[in-house]
Amino acid sequence: MEDCDLIIIGAGPAGLAAGIYATRSGLKTLVLEEKIAGGTIADAPLVENYPGLMKVTGLELAQKMAEHSKLAGVKIHEFEGATKLELKDEIKTVKTGRAAYQTRTVVIASGSHYREIGVPGEREFRGRGVSYCGICDGPLFKDKRVLVVGGGNSALITTLYLSELAAEVKIAHRRDVFRAEEALVKALANRKNIEVLWSREVQAIQGEKTVNKVVFYNKKSEAKEELSVDGVFVQVGESPNSQLAKEAGVEVDEHGYIKVDMFQKTNIAGVYAAGDVTNHPVKQVGTAVGQGIAAALEAYAFVKRPYYK
Amino acid sequence: MEDCDLIIIGAGPAGLAAGIYATRSGLKTLVLEEKIAGGTIADAPLVENYPGLMKVTGLELAQKMAEHSKLAGVKIHEFEGATKLELKDEIKTVKTGRAAYQTRTVVIASGSHYREIGVPGEREFRGRGVSYCGICDGPLFKDKRVLVVGGGNSALITTLYLSELAAEVKIAHRRDVFRAEEALVKALANRKNIEVLWSREVQAIQGEKTVNKVVFYNKKSEAKEELSVDGVFVQVGESPNSQLAKEAGVEVDEHGYIKVDMFQKTNIAGVYAAGDVTNHPVKQVGTAVGQGIAAALEAYAFVKRPYYK
Repeated sequence: MEDCDLIIIGAGPAGLAAGIYATRSGLKTLVLEEKIAGGTIADAPLVENYPGLMKVTGLELAQKMAEHSKLAGVKIHEFEGATKLELKDEIKTVKTGRAAYQTRTVVIASGSHYREIGVPGEREFRGRGVSYCGICDGPLFKDKRVLVVGGGNSALITTLYLSELAAEVKIAHRRDVFRAEEALVKALANRKNIEVLWSREVQAIQGEKTVNKVVFYNKKSEAKEELSVDGVFVQVGESPNSQLAKEAGVEVDEHGYIKVDMFQKTNIAGVYAAGDVTNHPVKQVGTAVGQGIAAALEAYAFVKRPYYK
Repeated sequence: MEDCDLIIIGAGPAGLAAGIYATRSGLKTLVLEEKIAGGTIADAPLVENYPGLMKVTGLELAQKMAEHSKLAGVKIHEFEGATKLELKDEIKTVKTGRAAYQTRTVVIASGSHYREIGVPGEREFRGRGVSYCGICDGPLFKDKRVLVVGGGNSALITTLYLSELAAEVKIAHRRDVFRAEEALVKALANRKNIEVLWSREVQAIQGEKTVNKVVFYNKKSEAKEELSVDGVFVQVGESPNSQLAKEAGVEVDEHGYIKVDMFQKTNIAGVYAAGDVTNHPVKQVGTAVGQGIAAALEAYAFVKRPYYK
């Protein structure tokens, strides 16, 4: 058993920002991370939109944040993910494969994962033509040819977004109708550089150093087809890593995202959430950082001045 | 007259983050700044808590953000502050001393200003021993002697915060009783390294390269006194730069901060606010950046897909 003021679940941008602020404020803080510190941003080929760092790879940004945290004295246990949370009492318990930690407060910053389509080449070319985030990576495909895979709101929004940057955007959907809002479908039809490929299932993503081809199965013609592209945006949904929190009684929305208020508070006193795991509408490094900071300072207030609202 | 999709009022961290995201998204964006791009963070002697940039001066951070914005193609008019906002109609007008701009959306990121005590040496030593933010600059005074000036909640919170870092903290108040919450006053009394200097008016802040002395007038003894210190934290309040917004009908709270929701929306459609000018409880560079990003993406959604909620 070890005693903490604050345990942070996850060492992505939200968790590391929370760690820096909490540690600097004097809270006895521990960050638990099931992989290595930095978070999924490490997968992004290039990050041009984290203000202050002009042009960094996702890996560099992840490493800078991890290094910054360590320099600030943040205690991070890598390769030690939480396996169970007990949050209802004043003193909370976080269990891992190695130990059980007691703590006054918890910040859940466990992020989310993009759903994959699960075809050959998808993982191989991730960060080299395969992306899961239009806002993050779209500008890298200016005047190029890209393919979006999916048929829901986020796929259509990404397609519209990319159509203002890329030369040509194709969207491949396995059905013959979108499951998206009418206004988005109409907007799509009005763009000249967008083409919809109905009833296509992606079978493989191919390339050399980077992506140059996608192989489809056309469900109508029952033929195999090939398409030359420079990039593939997979938009078949994402899921928050909120299972443990949910099991511990933390309230989530209909998609599983943890509900937070302006102070990053959850429904349980002393339990906060920040970053991609929350129901905040924007999922960017810069917003995750802001939320991590707010969560840490709120946890600080809870521990150090419990009677002061 | 010039037409924009988005005008951003203020080029501090919130405004610049909004500018980067809006410009990259393809919105025709203009940032208006009455001074130079970067914001009041430029006054901070050292910033150690903006995740990813380990140790920068406030000026360096401000310059990095400004440079990043310019590299991203953000159009910034420096030395051109807004003088009047007309926000009620669908097409809004922002007037400056030089022009009147029409725009679909507005992000107000005009920041706030710390109230000064107005004594000799205060401006001279700002950033060289005189600070207005305990969380920002407290760790620079580890094991040193600091003075807090003020008697309200924020002065007491800063004093408590600093007492865990500095060797000795004195707090000088011009009255003989605090105007702060009971719990804070009690907490203060329990700390051994805090001393309260009642009925003292600061008359001057002195030093050589950095602060080393404060001169008081003691209202009880009617004597002039001197105190050797390494740092002075002025905590006599801050005020949001929200006057123009308020005149244009934007709703503010009882302290003048612009009321925003989780999407950074104000009470007027198409008008957003981000950073220190808002009623968000945390005022840090990292949170301002997160809010600027969210505001820009919300403005993008408003302009590009008005029927899509």
